[in-house]
Amino acid sequence: MFFSSDEELDSAPPSNLRRNRSICQTPMMKSSLRWRHQKLPPHVSPSFWILRRGCMYLCRQLFRSLSTSNPFLLLPSKPRWMHQRLRISKMISTASSGDTKKIVGVFYKANKYASKNPNFLGCVENALGIRDWLESQGHQYIVTDDKEGPNCELEKHIPDLHVLISTPFNPAYVTAERIKKAKNLQLLLRAGIGSDHIDLKAAAAAGLTVAEVTGSNVVSVAEDELMRILILMRNFVPGHQQIINGEWNVAGIAHRAYDLEGKTVGTVGAGRIGRLLLQRLKPFGHDRLQMEQELEEEIGAKHMENLNEMVTKCDVIVINTPLTEKTRGMFNKEMIGRMKKGVLIVNNARAAIMERQAVVEAAESGHIGGYSGDVWDPQPAPKDHPWRYMPNQAMTPHISGTTIDAQLRYAAGTKDMLDRFFKGEDFPAQNYIVKDGEIAPQYV
Amino acid sequence: MFFSSDEELDSAPPSNLRRNRSICQTPMMKSSLRWRHQKLPPHVSPSFWILRRGCMYLCRQLFRSLSTSNPFLLLPSKPRWMHQRLRISKMISTASSGDTKKIVGVFYKANKYASKNPNFLGCVENALGIRDWLESQGHQYIVTDDKEGPNCELEKHIPDLHVLISTPFNPAYVTAERIKKAKNLQLLLRAGIGSDHIDLKAAAAAGLTVAEVTGSNVVSVAEDELMRILILMRNFVPGHQQIINGEWNVAGIAHRAYDLEGKTVGTVGAGRIGRLLLQRLKPFGHDRLQMEQELEEEIGAKHMENLNEMVTKCDVIVINTPLTEKTRGMFNKEMIGRMKKGVLIVNNARAAIMERQAVVEAAESGHIGGYSGDVWDPQPAPKDHPWRYMPNQAMTPHISGTTIDAQLRYAAGTKDMLDRFFKGEDFPAQNYIVKDGEIAPQYV
Repeated sequence: MFFSSDEELDSAPPSNLRRNRSICQTPMMKSSLRWRHQKLPPHVSPSFWILRRGCMYLCRQLFRSLSTSNPFLLLPSKPRWMHQRLRISKMISTASSGDTKKIVGVFYKANKYASKNPNFLGCVENALGIRDWLESQGHQYIVTDDKEGPNCELEKHIPDLHVLISTPFNPAYVTAERIKKAKNLQLLLRAGIGSDHIDLKAAAAAGLTVAEVTGSNVVSVAEDELMRILILMRNFVPGHQQIINGEWNVAGIAHRAYDLEGKTVGTVGAGRIGRLLLQRLKPFGHDRLQMEQELEEEIGAKHMENLNEMVTKCDVIVINTPLTEKTRGMFNKEMIGRMKKGVLIVNNARAAIMERQAVVEAAESGHIGGYSGDVWDPQPAPKDHPWRYMPNQAMTPHISGTTIDAQLRYAAGTKDMLDRFFKGEDFPAQNYIVKDGEIAPQYV
Repeated sequence: MFFSSDEELDSAPPSNLRRNRSICQTPMMKSSLRWRHQKLPPHVSPSFWILRRGCMYLCRQLFRSLSTSNPFLLLPSKPRWMHQRLRISKMISTASSGDTKKIVGVFYKANKYASKNPNFLGCVENALGIRDWLESQGHQYIVTDDKEGPNCELEKHIPDLHVLISTPFNPAYVTAERIKKAKNLQLLLRAGIGSDHIDLKAAAAAGLTVAEVTGSNVVSVAEDELMRILILMRNFVPGHQQIINGEWNVAGIAHRAYDLEGKTVGTVGAGRIGRLLLQRLKPFGHDRLQMEQELEEEIGAKHMENLNEMVTKCDVIVINTPLTEKTRGMFNKEMIGRMKKGVLIVNNARAAIMERQAVVEAAESGHIGGYSGDVWDPQPAPKDHPWRYMPNQAMTPHISGTTIDAQLRYAAGTKDMLDRFFKGEDFPAQNYIVKDGEIAPQYV
């Protein structure tokens, strides 16, 4: 539903919320969960995990009988294992004891747009739609978009906040330094997907829980990727530009517009988003290449072990891998040099996977025939970011995962995790990025 | 393939041509042909057509033995049936006698873009790539983009041209008046699809043959439609505009960006293009509505008899019907008023199917939430065309069917029809728009 009238929107949220939530129960999502479990490091067997969860359950029952309000302060210099254990104990005990929490949300400001759509939940003004619910339980809920520099609003609350919520669209960067200052911090929630705004090692060492609303925007991002592939392939942007400039020059567009049919598309990474993209590419009747073997049977895409080889074959390359130390700067001058001349690149994953200057130079030389994405390093992109001005780009601000539909999903998912946190319950397993001092393997 | 380097492009055309031609042999195309035959008026039974073709074959053999160079001039005042018969006779006789022809092609000028891509065939400079082939057979081939007004280049050649080729992107309007002047005219070829630039009744009355390269750009247009649906749904245009303006305001985009998943899309018309679109929409998992009953089983789309009812249910409406007297102005104020508030409309069919001012007013009031298409009335669109300046439009010049891939297909299809014309052979049946004084039923 995408009504823009207030009357119609008023009646829409409940059914939308129900429908969107059900996405997490599709076979696709279930298979994604299986996949995530299959990706555990070899030394962590599933049985080990089951066993450890059993232990955790017993620990939790034990800690529920205590109500130490701040064990961390009692033991400032502790060994790491104890630090973690005590953070966990704090989270559980304070949650179960009915303590009120200080929750800070960092979103983008919507200003005049905030009131245009009651489902527009992901902005400062509408604050995920959970203010009344939180405040009715006595929690303090502070929301801001002011997140940078030593005097920003976020910085003021770092020393005593318990929970920090942030979206990928105006991320609150959680550095080791901020984690050190945040003596009460227990939980870092991503309203959306991804964790590259957080120093995960520092978070794990400090025993924090980091979680996202897994699956909340995978459909939104996959659809957006297909749109960007088509926009680049069809040379849409200069065409539209002609229209608003009062011009008409078909040749200026048509000399480099192609059908997508018959082209070879590769995705680097085929997790939740990558496989949704591959499904949507299926009817276009072209070759698809990707890096996840198990998808071969499911979607009929050809698996390639070697990225260096894959990029030589693709007309279009889509980045669908998280930013990690392994993937940072992966698409450098050398990797781009291996690609076909005129390659189209779509990157809604993270900007730092690309080497910024290498992209600019290749776009200027024509080696990259088109580049589209919504991710920048840093965000918001400064006015002088060279990707704004390189040729044949179809960039936007970071928007692909913040459709109204996605906002309803990640607002509902964030609320659900807060609710479980207050009750001392586990989150859905697939949402954890850092738990009990361990980083989920795909983020290592 | 979409290489932009000259070296790589040089090696590309033959394989591309082979691949693209094979598209006409897909099951989809075959079923389209069946469909077209099923759509013959009830009084024209298939057996009648077979029989008539048998007669035609005998007539042709008879006429091959004659070589009247211009029977039309010998009998200036004739009954309609004789007029037609004689035009046919002329076409066959001159073709088989090895007479040379004056062929005029009207395309768009590419200027500096013409040399950028050797497969960029649809422009004046590259002239479908058939100049050498035509001239080696002694035919005269004149190409221009100057097609309007009494002193234009086209007008000079009207009196003595035999064949007029035109694309939909810079159409040569063939009025009854021009047909009257064109005493030698036998064949009107559309390099591409569609015939609304021709007064078909006048062409039929004059016994002209009108044909298109059926199927040559259906994939291109269907892909482009999906792109436009996504561009409107995701509010892409203002997002990109922010980037090139040095801005960053996620809220300005996100407050009206939606997922396509779960929305209801309807196509008005489900011929070749419409059904390719429906196939491509299938993995998006939303409701699709359209008007062709037989597609229900094939693609799982729901058929609706009544357009007035269909438009009330759609979040997105795609126009995929030819412009005829029945469809001209079909989407007027009343029809748009029936649609959901905020409806998205994609129209790559023909602009005159919409009532121009009704679209502007509905876009300004917000009743139409977004309008995208590449068709205008007239073309090129004048600088002051209001669709250039209405809100939430994602318009381009007429480009959706002129990708490099489509150009290869329609250049090959045009050459094939010219070759058959010179040899006195029939065209592929599905290409005829007017034949033997009869207009194909879907254009009536």
